[in-house]
Amino acid sequence: MHQLVLLRHGQSQWNLENRFTGWTDVDLSEQGADEARQAGRLLNEGGYEFDAVFTSVLKRAIRTLWIVLDQTDQMWLPVVRHWRLNERHYGALQGLNKADTAKKEGAEQVHLWRRSYKVRPPALAEDDPRFPAHDRRYAHLSPAEIPQTECLQDVLDRFLPYWRETIAPQVLQSKRILIVAHGNSLRALVKYLDDLSEEEIVAQNIPTGIPLVYRLDSQLTPIEKFYLGDPEAARKAAQGVANQTLLER
Amino acid sequence: MHQLVLLRHGQSQWNLENRFTGWTDVDLSEQGADEARQAGRLLNEGGYEFDAVFTSVLKRAIRTLWIVLDQTDQMWLPVVRHWRLNERHYGALQGLNKADTAKKEGAEQVHLWRRSYKVRPPALAEDDPRFPAHDRRYAHLSPAEIPQTECLQDVLDRFLPYWRETIAPQVLQSKRILIVAHGNSLRALVKYLDDLSEEEIVAQNIPTGIPLVYRLDSQLTPIEKFYLGDPEAARKAAQGVANQTLLER
Repeated sequence: MHQLVLLRHGQSQWNLENRFTGWTDVDLSEQGADEARQAGRLLNEGGYEFDAVFTSVLKRAIRTLWIVLDQTDQMWLPVVRHWRLNERHYGALQGLNKADTAKKEGAEQVHLWRRSYKVRPPALAEDDPRFPAHDRRYAHLSPAEIPQTECLQDVLDRFLPYWRETIAPQVLQSKRILIVAHGNSLRALVKYLDDLSEEEIVAQNIPTGIPLVYRLDSQLTPIEKFYLGDPEAARKAAQGVANQTLLER
Repeated sequence: MHQLVLLRHGQSQWNLENRFTGWTDVDLSEQGADEARQAGRLLNEGGYEFDAVFTSVLKRAIRTLWIVLDQTDQMWLPVVRHWRLNERHYGALQGLNKADTAKKEGAEQVHLWRRSYKVRPPALAEDDPRFPAHDRRYAHLSPAEIPQTECLQDVLDRFLPYWRETIAPQVLQSKRILIVAHGNSLRALVKYLDDLSEEEIVAQNIPTGIPLVYRLDSQLTPIEKFYLGDPEAARKAAQGVANQTLLER
């Protein structure tokens, strides 16, 4: 039996300011750092140890990971940062206030951009300063790899090759892997692992700061899946994510 | 021309308590964290950017690196942690108070253990709880690779293969590399790069928290070498390391 733990980073400054974030490299808020510490405590209480860690190239995920590594006394673990684990790219919406955008574009449109599987937000122009090619960390990507905007399906399409080629083989070697990433990159993986339909994944919410443990068989089919700590707390936290969307409608 | 920056971690808790540390995984002191922040400021003032970072598997180096990555807004950089960059293994002296040991074994003997190129401290027994094989992070090492004690020459012998096979090729590809490590693993590299004699390297001290910049030609021969910031501050800090030894004599 193989083990995999997923962790979604805690609240960021722009979550707090209700702005679309995507690939913008916004730091954790104080509450976000607290959520990361809570995740570290839950891992310690459960006696979880890891052999390797994967995260994105965005600091809200990396700082969450740092706090967890520190709290669990595993700062020495090998860590790979990869852009394929990044949050969904939010296109031209990045930086805009969600409520303002709902007023301007209509709540229904914003809901579609946020939650549908295949609808992409408006694309970012290549000469926009926010376009990823202008950022040194993405300079090695091919033009085809650099997103101008992404829907959840696009995230699956760019994350799954990395899962298959790099992470899954390590899980199959019985390495205990921790992935610290984002709402949508983790939902992409959950859709794949749990073999969910497009409708099912759109309805799934992953709470922040609560480690999600998978136990997998030799085909990497889930045997069990649970959140660490109080199940009611995890349910409420996931509901909180769902409500956030409902409020915007 | 190629660039390489070396950084020695700041003061640790056991530096503060005057204890032999070696591979013991002791954290930075508050002063050590301040020294790391100072290093970050010096790198920012000099406009230094990196493409990849190497560090040890010891948290005093890793935390120094984290502080520098945070301060220079490069948390996304690829980081490799490797045991071959660890501090010199201090054998059975690890954990002992330096002054107590000098009283017991004689100041001259302690000075030899600390500063000579080829004299090893007493070896750690394999059944000692401090023996590295009992630590999960060294479980993949072969018995021949696990040190029971090390002199500076031993550090060179285990660090140089990693330099030649992994780090140097990246420097030659014009990647801007930062190495955050320890007094003796960095002295090993400095001896090699500067082609110093055993006597010369024994007399060299690398100050903590002050980035040491190398500019190298296509043979990786140093063209120039300097500490960032105030040269007088670097000279005094190196002198402080030297004095620390003199005081113990």
